[in-house]
Amino acid sequence: MMKLEMICTGEEVLAGQIVDSNAAWFANMLMERGVEMTQRVTVGDRLEDLVAVFQERSHHADVIVVNGGLGPTTDDLSAEAMALAKGEALTENAEWRARLDELTIRYGRMMSPNNLKQAMLPESAIMVDNPVGTACGFRVKLNRAWLFFTPGVPHELKKMIHEQFLPFIREEFGEGDSMSLKKLLTLGHGESSLGESLERLALPPGVTIGYRSSMPYNEIKLFARGDAANAALGDLVGLVKYTLGAAVVSEGKPNLAEEIHGLLLNSGKTLALAESCTGGLLASQLVDFPGSSSYLQHSVVSYCNESKIKLLGVSPYTLEQDGAVSIATVREMAQGAKNVLASDYALSISGIAGPDGGTDEKPVGTVAIGLSTPLGEWCQMIHVRQISRRTVRALSCAIAYDMLRRAIQGEEPIVEYPSIRRTAVWSR
Amino acid sequence: MMKLEMICTGEEVLAGQIVDSNAAWFANMLMERGVEMTQRVTVGDRLEDLVAVFQERSHHADVIVVNGGLGPTTDDLSAEAMALAKGEALTENAEWRARLDELTIRYGRMMSPNNLKQAMLPESAIMVDNPVGTACGFRVKLNRAWLFFTPGVPHELKKMIHEQFLPFIREEFGEGDSMSLKKLLTLGHGESSLGESLERLALPPGVTIGYRSSMPYNEIKLFARGDAANAALGDLVGLVKYTLGAAVVSEGKPNLAEEIHGLLLNSGKTLALAESCTGGLLASQLVDFPGSSSYLQHSVVSYCNESKIKLLGVSPYTLEQDGAVSIATVREMAQGAKNVLASDYALSISGIAGPDGGTDEKPVGTVAIGLSTPLGEWCQMIHVRQISRRTVRALSCAIAYDMLRRAIQGEEPIVEYPSIRRTAVWSR
Repeated sequence: MMKLEMICTGEEVLAGQIVDSNAAWFANMLMERGVEMTQRVTVGDRLEDLVAVFQERSHHADVIVVNGGLGPTTDDLSAEAMALAKGEALTENAEWRARLDELTIRYGRMMSPNNLKQAMLPESAIMVDNPVGTACGFRVKLNRAWLFFTPGVPHELKKMIHEQFLPFIREEFGEGDSMSLKKLLTLGHGESSLGESLERLALPPGVTIGYRSSMPYNEIKLFARGDAANAALGDLVGLVKYTLGAAVVSEGKPNLAEEIHGLLLNSGKTLALAESCTGGLLASQLVDFPGSSSYLQHSVVSYCNESKIKLLGVSPYTLEQDGAVSIATVREMAQGAKNVLASDYALSISGIAGPDGGTDEKPVGTVAIGLSTPLGEWCQMIHVRQISRRTVRALSCAIAYDMLRRAIQGEEPIVEYPSIRRTAVWSR
Repeated sequence: MMKLEMICTGEEVLAGQIVDSNAAWFANMLMERGVEMTQRVTVGDRLEDLVAVFQERSHHADVIVVNGGLGPTTDDLSAEAMALAKGEALTENAEWRARLDELTIRYGRMMSPNNLKQAMLPESAIMVDNPVGTACGFRVKLNRAWLFFTPGVPHELKKMIHEQFLPFIREEFGEGDSMSLKKLLTLGHGESSLGESLERLALPPGVTIGYRSSMPYNEIKLFARGDAANAALGDLVGLVKYTLGAAVVSEGKPNLAEEIHGLLLNSGKTLALAESCTGGLLASQLVDFPGSSSYLQHSVVSYCNESKIKLLGVSPYTLEQDGAVSIATVREMAQGAKNVLASDYALSISGIAGPDGGTDEKPVGTVAIGLSTPLGEWCQMIHVRQISRRTVRALSCAIAYDMLRRAIQGEEPIVEYPSIRRTAVWSR
């Protein structure tokens, strides 16, 4: 079996200044394809350390993905270190030099000597295309290993891995076992309670279940390795969904915003939003997707009482009597957002994200959520065990989306979430 | 100088299922104390991989902190691997066994054989106390290195590092150099152009400059090692800021939202927002910070023309004549947002985030940004070389914040950003 390792470079990754999300993304992506990584080395920007680690690991692995150090500045040393490790010179790659010259002309920037450095590769390097950046990828064979050099910029890395690296290892090392992966997104159920529900199921041979917390969701991953397991996976997904009921809020999507986007895109239905404590997050998660303008009309982020009155028509009396975080207020916020352009659906959120602003009656983490549809209105007030402002806001958005998802799919919008405490509910 | 490395163990860390926050914490904590780490290896839970990495790294480092694998379950293999690496047996540590027995009595739990495993250490190990858990720390000398074994539970690790590890390395290797770090945030200048401007500066001995791309910003890091370099750092920061001029948009903060939050918090001034393509991101980045409700009044996310008319009072004639992405529209959006509650400041953004919606005259990546203050109005239209919707939106927000930052600080709000093309500008 191919032995694959990763070397991450960069002082800021080694020194903990930034989280190494490239490494996590890469490992995760490989695992989903049934490829295992055996180790990862993180080194700084010192030339001798890079040379040493390239040489040392080249005796142990078949493929080593090196990430970072291909930029134009003096601390970008990957190509130089690789040339030293192999005992060869750096030479200018004509194809990449032409690319850099072309970019200079296209964007009218002067290409500096620093940028030209990015075309300097070890003599025996095979260029690997990076169609979205100025950092040239390449691969070099040293001892047992192919060292495969990739850019540190995340979207450049991802493109290169998908378009160049995966085909390369398939070509060199063949296909692994057939493997498939199904992901189910759950909301409002703890990992241990999901585990208890599912451990009673008899899994077909070759199938394993994994759990991943991805706040505010818990993701269930069903891996199948081998043809028989692959064939059995569809039925198992059905069984898991049946077993978990309303806990499963999406299949194959990483969050509910993408689920809502899929449901509303090209539906001809429109959506209006009114947000307080989520501060634009509800809208922003939908605007992430191209085409969201086909259904999303507006979000009124009313972060003070006066804005709720002026922009959404919430009654000052309601704010006075029930407070900004209340069933009555989110009902009027949803109505107000919906009435501006007579939208089909409206969602509203108002809550206390903390760390200040809580009271005995409505402690930090209290959030009211409203939904208005052509068929009626549903509101609930929950209390999120408060971990951080971010958690309160992310979970509030997820529950709002789940209410809307259920309404669009013709289900009762409000369900029990065992891990979340509900303090009030209202509908008509 | 002491050579220090880290080995992180655990399948879930290697496979990217969880972020290795222990590694980041440890490296960061060391750096602040002037101790540099030269590399970090991340391995899974396979016995032979652990043995190999312990043996291999023991020839290169003076001290290796090993994190994780001290728990009671079958995948906790650090002690066993260390014993194999050194070619010695595991023996029960009498002191730790007594501690486990004491814990059993104190908490009335039955101590299982699994827990007793936690007292089994390599024969030559020196026990390292863990006063807050059942995982026994220890250190073993192999070849050149001391391997220092620490628990994976974060608060246990932190206590052991502070109370046991730091005194140990001070005792063995003496005090390190004093070290400090200053960060400057830049906007609108490429990393290579920043590098060119700064490479002319004469750096005091012991000071190094690093760059980090943190879209949409580039961060400059000034490291100083040793007392003389530390003393010179303040002046150097001043010189760098003077050299780079308007490129430097913040000192010590990771983004402009935090800078704006700092400037407006407790200022008594208020802010209103009107967003189109950024879809709530402008508001959401401020709402991340507790206390933002003291200045942020609302953001009207008007994602269609009708909402711009109804909620912000943009003239249908302007939308018809100039289009939704225009100087005239963002001027009216800013005015509209500001007029709702007579806010002190207003920002507005309208653009084409793509991938569709572009025209020859206004291609994807065209964004208009408006600022209204008590002193006047400033609008500009830029063209962002389009990488993704996310990039267009993040950069648009950063430029809007930068205009506001400059206005609050009494500077001309609109400046040149060499790496961003501006297509129109207007002020009064």
